[in-house]
Order: sequence, then C-alpha cells, then structure tokens
Amino acid sequence: MLNKLSGWHDTIVALATPPGIGALGVIRLSGDKAINIIDLLFPSKNISDQLSHTLHVGLLKENEKLLDQVVISVYKNPASYTGEDVVEISCHGSSYVQDQIIQAVIRKGARIANPGEFTQRAFLNGKLDLIQAEAVADLIVSSTAASQKAALHNIRGKFSEILKDMRDQLIQFSSLIELELDFSEEDVEFADRKKFVELIDIISITTKKLLGSFALGNVIKNGVSVAIVGKPNAGKSTLLNTLLNDNRAIVSEIAGTTRDTIEETLNINGILFRMIDTAGIRDHSADVIENLGILKSLEKIEEADIVLYLFDAGNLEISDVKKVKEKLTKQNKNFFLVVNKSDIINKQNVENLLQSVHEILFISAKENTGIEELKANLFLSVTSQTPLTENTVITNARHYAALFEIEKSLSEIRDGLTNNIFTDLLSLEIRRCLHHLGEITGEITNEDRLDYIFSKFCIGK
Amino acid sequence: MLNKLSGWHDTIVALATPPGIGALGVIRLSGDKAINIIDLLFPSKNISDQLSHTLHVGLLKENEKLLDQVVISVYKNPASYTGEDVVEISCHGSSYVQDQIIQAVIRKGARIANPGEFTQRAFLNGKLDLIQAEAVADLIVSSTAASQKAALHNIRGKFSEILKDMRDQLIQFSSLIELELDFSEEDVEFADRKKFVELIDIISITTKKLLGSFALGNVIKNGVSVAIVGKPNAGKSTLLNTLLNDNRAIVSEIAGTTRDTIEETLNINGILFRMIDTAGIRDHSADVIENLGILKSLEKIEEADIVLYLFDAGNLEISDVKKVKEKLTKQNKNFFLVVNKSDIINKQNVENLLQSVHEILFISAKENTGIEELKANLFLSVTSQTPLTENTVITNARHYAALFEIEKSLSEIRDGLTNNIFTDLLSLEIRRCLHHLGEITGEITNEDRLDYIFSKFCIGK
Repeated sequence: MLNKLSGWHDTIVALATPPGIGALGVIRLSGDKAINIIDLLFPSKNISDQLSHTLHVGLLKENEKLLDQVVISVYKNPASYTGEDVVEISCHGSSYVQDQIIQAVIRKGARIANPGEFTQRAFLNGKLDLIQAEAVADLIVSSTAASQKAALHNIRGKFSEILKDMRDQLIQFSSLIELELDFSEEDVEFADRKKFVELIDIISITTKKLLGSFALGNVIKNGVSVAIVGKPNAGKSTLLNTLLNDNRAIVSEIAGTTRDTIEETLNINGILFRMIDTAGIRDHSADVIENLGILKSLEKIEEADIVLYLFDAGNLEISDVKKVKEKLTKQNKNFFLVVNKSDIINKQNVENLLQSVHEILFISAKENTGIEELKANLFLSVTSQTPLTENTVITNARHYAALFEIEKSLSEIRDGLTNNIFTDLLSLEIRRCLHHLGEITGEITNEDRLDYIFSKFCIGK
Repeated sequence: MLNKLSGWHDTIVALATPPGIGALGVIRLSGDKAINIIDLLFPSKNISDQLSHTLHVGLLKENEKLLDQVVISVYKNPASYTGEDVVEISCHGSSYVQDQIIQAVIRKGARIANPGEFTQRAFLNGKLDLIQAEAVADLIVSSTAASQKAALHNIRGKFSEILKDMRDQLIQFSSLIELELDFSEEDVEFADRKKFVELIDIISITTKKLLGSFALGNVIKNGVSVAIVGKPNAGKSTLLNTLLNDNRAIVSEIAGTTRDTIEETLNINGILFRMIDTAGIRDHSADVIENLGILKSLEKIEEADIVLYLFDAGNLEISDVKKVKEKLTKQNKNFFLVVNKSDIINKQNVENLLQSVHEILFISAKENTGIEELKANLFLSVTSQTPLTENTVITNARHYAALFEIEKSLSEIRDGLTNNIFTDLLSLEIRRCLHHLGEITGEITNEDRLDYIFSKFCIGK
C-alpha cells in the first residue's frame, strides 16, 4: 500500500451534489469519526447502533439549533465507497441550509475534503485502482453515449483486467528469471525462452491494439473539432444552424440538458463534434478573402481536426476547388469538400466536372438535403479505423504514455530474448515493463512482484 | 381526503438534485410501480424483496446497456416522503448519465413528475399539511438564518399545532351549537355562552399576534430593501462596499455561497437586506440634483422599505438635512440620516447642531467606523416591533389573508354572542371561521367537523 497522505486520519466532509437550489442535496462524510459526528448532530437515533446500508429519517440539530429535517445513509467500513465509515446526509436543496450543516459537521471535528479526496481514499484503501478512479472523473463529465460507455467500461475494471492478465503472465516469467539469478552459479534455465517470446508477442499485440485505440479514445473523451469554412454567403451559418437545430430537436427531449453544452456541439451517434464557428473569421477577413483569395482564411482554422469546406453551387469555380484541395492536402488536414445550395444546380453535371479533382458532397443546408450523409461521413471519418466496439478504448493520455513505454520495453525484451542477452539485463527490462504496467493501475509493482515470488515460488528460506 | 388529481396512479420520476456536474445526483421515483421499475433496471438484486430504508449498491442496466453504477435507496409505502413506494437512485453527477437513467425509467413505465408533485402527493396522502408543504418550498429557497428557522418551524408543524388547537376548541363549541339546532324545538342551550366568549377572546389574541407577525415574516421571507441616497461624493458607493465587503468576509467562510446572491444583499443577524444601488440614479440625475435640489432624487427610491440618506460631513448644510427630513417624513418612509466622513469633523459640534432636526448616525465608510452601529439600527428597525423569538411568524401571504378572515369572523361571532343572535346564524359564522382555518392547513373542515361531532358527542342514532 502507498504511503498514506497527510490528513489521512481526518474525517472529511463535502457537498456531493451540485450547488444550487433543488429538492435535495447530499453531504458526504468519510472517516473514523463520521458516524460519531452524526451521533452528535442527530438526536433522534444512535447511528452507531444501526446496520450498514440503512436509512434514517430525523432532525439534524446542533445543540438546540435545528438545522434541517434529513435522511441519514450509513455505510460502515469497509463496505463503503471509500472503504472507511461513510455517512451521507440527504438534506433540503438550499445552499444556505447545506452550508449550515457542513459548518456544524466541521465544528464537531471534520474538515472540508480536498477535490477528489473521497476517490483518493477509495484508491488508497484498495477499493478502486487508478484506472477506475480516473474513470469516475471521466464519467461525471461524460456528455455522450461513447464517453459514458468508455468510462463505465473502465469503472467496471475491464481495462484493469487486461492489464492484470498481462502483469500476471509477465510476473510468472519474471519470477523464474529472478530464480535463475539466485542460482546463477549453477547456470540453470528455469524460464522457457521460446514460450517467453510467444508470450511477449501476445502481450505486444494487445498493447499495440490499446495504443491504436487512443485516436478514437481521444475523440470520445475530447470530441472532434470541425471548422466550417468557405466564402461569404456559401451558407456556412445556415449549415451550422441546420446541423445544430437538427441536433437540438433531439437533445430537447432530454430533461436537464443545458443549452450551453449543445450550442456549438453536435452529437453524432455518440461522438461529440465541436463546431468551430468561422463566421467571425469571415467578418474580420472579408476584404482579405476578396483580395488575397480564399486560401488565407484557412490559416485561421489550423486547430481544427476536420475542415468542412463549403462551396456555393451558384458561384462555383473549378480552380477554387483545386486550390482549396491543394492547400488542405498540404496542411495534412482531414477535410471534406461540400457543395451547398445543390438544389439550384444540375448536380450530375457538376459532379462529373468536379469528380476529377476530389470527392464532393452535395447538400442543401436550406432544404435540409444531404445533411444526414454529411453527418455519416463525419462520423465515419473518426470511427472507420477503430470502430466503436465492446473493446477497451484508451481515452487517457497518461495510460497512452505508459502503454507506449510498455511497448518499447516489450520490444527490448523480445530483442534480448532472441539475442540471448544476460539474464540480469533481461530481468531489469522486465521490471521496467512491469513498472509501467503498475503505473497505469497505480500499484507498486515491485513489492507486489516480490510478494508473488514468495507466495508462488517460495524457496523456503 | 381531497379528490385525487389526474395522473394520481402514475409512477413519477424526476431529478431531485440541482442539474449540473457533481459527484452525485439523485433521481427520485414515487408510485405503485417504483420498485417494480427498479427491478427491471437493477439486475444485481431484487429490490421488492428488500426491507424499507435500506441501501443497495449495483449496476443499473437497461436490457444489455449499462447505465451507471448506482446506489438504490428503498422507502416502502407508507414510510416514505410521499407515503407511496419511493426509490431514490444515487448516480454519478453527469447530466448525460442522469438523462439516460430518467429516460430508461420512463421507458419502463414512469412519467416525469410535475413541479412539486412529490410534495403534493405527500399532502394528498396526509404526510404533510398545506403549511408544511409550503414550508418545504420556503426552506429550499431560504438564504438566511431567520428564513431557515421560520420554514423549519412550519415544517415541524408548530404553526399547524396552533391552528389545530384553535380548531379543536372551536369545533367543540360548534358541535354543541349544532346539537342545539337539532333540539331547537326544545329551546335548550348546550353551549355555555360565557365560556364561548372567553374562548373567542383567547383565540382572537392568538390570531392578532399571528397577523402582527406578518410584517416581520414578510421581511424574513422577502428581505428588506434599503436605498442608499445622497449627493454625489457623499460616499454612497464606499458605504455600500464597506457594508458588502464586511458581509462578504463572513459569507466567504461558507462554502458554496454564490457571489450572485451576496453582491447586493446584506445579511444582518439572519435578516436579509437588499441594498438598492442608487449610483445609477446619481449619474443620470446629476444635473437634476444640482439644479432642482437633492429632493428630486428621492422620488426614484420610492420602492425602498428603508431610506438611508447619506450626508457628506465635509459639505454639510443644516437646511439640506431639514429638507431631506421633511420630504422623507412626508413620504412616510422608514429612514436613517447618516453623516459620512465623520473622521474629518468634530463630531460633537455637528451632533449638537443637528440633534434638533433629527437623530443622526455618524459613520466613516472609509475608516469603517460606526458601521456596526448602523447595521444594528437597520436590524432593530425591522425587528423591534416583533422580536425574533421562538414564536410562530407568518411568512406566507395566503396564511395572512386567511387569518385576516378568521379575525373578522371571530369578531362577528363575539358580537353575535354578546347580542344573542340566532343560534343558526352563529353556527354559520363558526363554520365560516373553521373554513378559513381549514383553508390554511388544507383540510376539508366540514367533513372533519362532522366526524368530530359523531366521535365525541355521539348521540347514538
């Protein structure tokens, strides 16, 4: 177990629900004194005499001062989120009342919890590993089906299980290699090198798959930025509105979804697309565009993951399309060329004309035609390489970095095995690999590994 | 019992905690199908087999789709807030996740609750009376010690108890009077008229006390508006800042208090003072003030409960003070005359000079002197007539209106008794009085009163 943090023995308290007015608010306490503190404030019942996982209605009072009528939830150590005694006070949803209660709890001996401290305690008490702890935070900020799914996948320990399998197999070989070191004078070989190479190859395939999922994982967690660019009057704003309104109609069925979050984001099949409004760019650079050409405006949207370039069907120049294509290709951008106002032209003719330059999507933002096809294209552009499956998807840059080191390490181990390097060097590289694996889940691999050796291969001394 | 509303048999669901990102959110279900619906979504345990007031950790799933890892709280009918089966789902604090859960619950047969519908059901199921139901809403929006206390006082039924006492006593006499009507041919007098007059007097004293408390109750519930007025550079903004900063320092100790609510309000000993910023008035009417005199600006602050007129000690004209006093007296305003920048003058001299005109408060907003006295004066100006005690304070205009009718009715009854009016007219007036009493708590007095007659004075037919 990791060294306990300072303030580890404190009983902590915090409002667990969002601040503001509501029917209910929940105040959470965790620590040795949690139940004792509630007993001082809840005269109607002795909470320490109650069973874990029970609910108790009554008045919360500090001395003679009535604080609120509340429901107390009791979770007794270790059967709680943090692994400590946890009490939740379900009170009325007034910030004033909640503050009064928290202050009374503090006066009875608790302190305000640091951000994430409940989950930190859950981790330090072994209730969660680091991946699961991080996934709790991800779930809370999730706003799409894909991010919810990825977070829940990790909370349930699916990713941890994969890593644990990898670790268990590596440790088994590692232990045998360490044994060889103990008996190094006798020049024995406990670990079957051929089998070890096979194992490394299998682990390496999994690692590469996980690394490959990060492109999608990042998209799932952070969304994809899409810039809609084009000459003035190409219909950029109309397209944006058509995309957003369509989306808004779906979202508005959902209670509690705030406008802020949907104003500029588009949820396509569970993936979040953040639409960059280049209307401002147009206004400021209107003469620039006219004088120096359309390409200038593209410089401003370099931060976008995807560029959606909109042409006006009524004012379409093949040379423009060519220039835009060249520029975007040179910028190494993921882009779509889209002809708007397709209702006013003979689509077939234009299509034949432009097909030689690049694949073109035809839409009419106003008539709402071609929009579904456009959305399908956006979705496929981020999911075609790594489809949304039940598999683990790496959404966390820290995990990616560690997996990257693991993969490097696996490659070193494999080279070492084929080149018959010294056992002690091999052992060192395996330790490095295990260290990075442990880094992801937050375990101290070293102690664990020793434990493993002693338990499985105890040499009896 | 009142007629049940349409949709009464529906199982209802709503988010009970404020929307937004937090560690936790609570979704509440109430109704016959509440437990059954959870059983369809919570595969880890059969909730219908669980005891009331217990907590259950597990995964919430709709068919194969994982929704969240949750805690289920079970309250079985009638031991719940609404009196029906109630289930609370404590889930992660993501709006997206909460929406997904609510939608799944709806698909399994619940409907979204109307505003206040849980409390309405509690009332219709006799778990709360109307006063208590209204106090729940008051408590949720309470932002001061006084409003919290008044709401909790009512939630605990203290006001209801007073009304119940009044009603019980009235009903006892009423029953006897009704009996007299039944035996009217025999000209008997069951009800002791002298004792009845005594009772009416006692009830009337209570009613008048309650009516009198409404001035304070209104202040407790809605706060007091205070306009700080004065010539430019009298130090109005400095005073406002001094008052607010002082307050903010206290408030900032309280976690979760939003700036919005304190920016322009001042909490003095639990009473909320809303400070009207007349800085804008000053700017717009600067020349008006200089041309037509300081009195003009006073017209703009007519809506204030209290006017705090600020004079500049460095520029003090007795004639100004007189004019201001006259104008404010004529406007029938509760006002304070305050001399700011008292540090730059000989306070004693000025005090002697002005004392003949009106009582003056001396402060220095900059040096922070006299501010506590000013605050004490503001506090006393609203609480001196009705001190903040443990007594019931009427904070609700509906209750005030009903009590006003009760008092009118009591006076009629008393007149009737002293003038020996016909028993049937007396009976009618008592019914009217009981009706208004029942109006406050939401009971149907008529049926109740009949029940009372039959139970206490059963005449055996």
